[in-house]
Amino acid sequence: MDLKMDAAALNALMIKEFPQVAEDFIVEKVAPMQVTVRLPVADRHLRPGGTISGPTMFGLADVSIYLATMAMIGPVTLAVTTNCSIDFMRKPQSGVDLIAYARLHKLGRSLAVGDVLIHSEGLEAPVARASLTYAIPPK
Amino acid sequence: MDLKMDAAALNALMIKEFPQVAEDFIVEKVAPMQVTVRLPVADRHLRPGGTISGPTMFGLADVSIYLATMAMIGPVTLAVTTNCSIDFMRKPQSGVDLIAYARLHKLGRSLAVGDVLIHSEGLEAPVARASLTYAIPPK
Amino acid sequence: MDLKMDAAALNALMIKEFPQVAEDFIVEKVAPMQVTVRLPVADRHLRPGGTISGPTMFGLADVSIYLATMAMIGPVTLAVTTNCSIDFMRKPQSGVDLIAYARLHKLGRSLAVGDVLIHSEGLEAPVARASLTYAIPPK
Amino acid sequence: MDLKMDAAALNALMIKEFPQVAEDFIVEKVAPMQVTVRLPVADRHLRPGGTISGPTMFGLADVSIYLATMAMIGPVTLAVTTNCSIDFMRKPQSGVDLIAYARLHKLGRSLAVGDVLIHSEGLEAPVARASLTYAIPPK
Repeated sequence: MDLKMDAAALNALMIKEFPQVAEDFIVEKVAPMQVTVRLPVADRHLRPGGTISGPTMFGLADVSIYLATMAMIGPVTLAVTTNCSIDFMRKPQSGVDLIAYARLHKLGRSLAVGDVLIHSEGLEAPVARASLTYAIPPK
Repeated sequence: MDLKMDAAALNALMIKEFPQVAEDFIVEKVAPMQVTVRLPVADRHLRPGGTISGPTMFGLADVSIYLATMAMIGPVTLAVTTNCSIDFMRKPQSGVDLIAYARLHKLGRSLAVGDVLIHSEGLEAPVARASLTYAIPPK
Repeated sequence: MDLKMDAAALNALMIKEFPQVAEDFIVEKVAPMQVTVRLPVADRHLRPGGTISGPTMFGLADVSIYLATMAMIGPVTLAVTTNCSIDFMRKPQSGVDLIAYARLHKLGRSLAVGDVLIHSEGLEAPVARASLTYAIPPK
Repeated sequence: MDLKMDAAALNALMIKEFPQVAEDFIVEKVAPMQVTVRLPVADRHLRPGGTISGPTMFGLADVSIYLATMAMIGPVTLAVTTNCSIDFMRKPQSGVDLIAYARLHKLGRSLAVGDVLIHSEGLEAPVARASLTYAIPPK
């Protein structure tokens, strides 16, 4: 299982395809079936009290599985999320970036399935976990 | 099961507690264990190609169950989402608002569980469905 | 949306294809995109204390969406579950059958998505809710 | 995080509390926040064609998180599943046991959340993944 795209290629893909949100998601590491993605937390991600919004964490999980899939199959940018199940387990630490560790468990012709653990940087206990399915369009 | 908050009270709650996103979510109807919420679609919700972003639909489902819970128990604003499972089933119609129909199936002392169907306004087939659990803090 | 199979045809399908479990699932009503399925509760479904086991309720939800799909597309028996999210909300009443109300929200060429509410017969509050996705094999 | 129960104690708990199904689930390893559970596949778990039934895999995931929780907090046997999201990714290999690797991500006073990967013994690619939440009753 060779990589079709490395971290630099994935970051370039985000800037080209999703310019509105590309600065939210920095690919840090890529390995077969795995990516690590940083969300540099900014004011627009916060709710009153300083907690990070649910849609922000959902978006991080979602993009991480997308990028893990692109890393393996190349820029099939029309892949779409069909399902996400996400558990919010702890309040993220304020003033700290989020780091998502995504792993694909299945990469078929038409479906990709993977898991994501989201951590406040530097903390061992994850703040959220998610599993996602992407539908991959026929070539 | 009397309502503790009506549509006007819920809309006022959103403006007070979530000023950054209150304009995204307009409560249209409230009934026991049910709310209807409109998302007036704007450019900031879109992805290239005109489709509505996943985090936007997640956020709509999430806030709808939150508001259905507040309608029943009053402004226990520290309720937090613990789980969401969401299925994205169709591409939303472009240029049309989203309407979420949320229904609570359980409202216990510590957990609320409900379902949401999200439609492009005027279309019969839903674009997404979601189920969510909220943890309700002790009084 | 005409029905391809009615309740009698679905019950016959269960006896032919799933003889080990067919007596657990009685199709009571069929309508476009909807079925109602009864689980006649027996000792083998119970856990100590008289509660109905989780796998029994999972199985009821799973077969209900399968049958709703077969009702619409005919006996494509190789359809397989790809995802299920289930919430267990209340203890089922002892000595009472379970009734599942299943509804399809999407029936595409390759995926079917639906929701199920499971009730102890005669009680208004559901004991469980589930959403399922089936992959439908190409003809 | 010391263990309150080891593999022998967990297997004894299963025989005492769940005698009908105890032979289906053999705890093989226990570590902090983790258990490995074997399902010795038998005819009663199979569907026509030799595939393992969905409720069997659901039950394995469910009991694995239950046992991981008991390992940490002791025999709080009234813990109940509140949510499960499960993805069925591949057909299990016939004639081979299933092995579940369960890991807790959160163990709070009232909720435990964990992930399970289910493999056909000896195969690297998992056949299913699941995440579960248990509600832990107050002492």
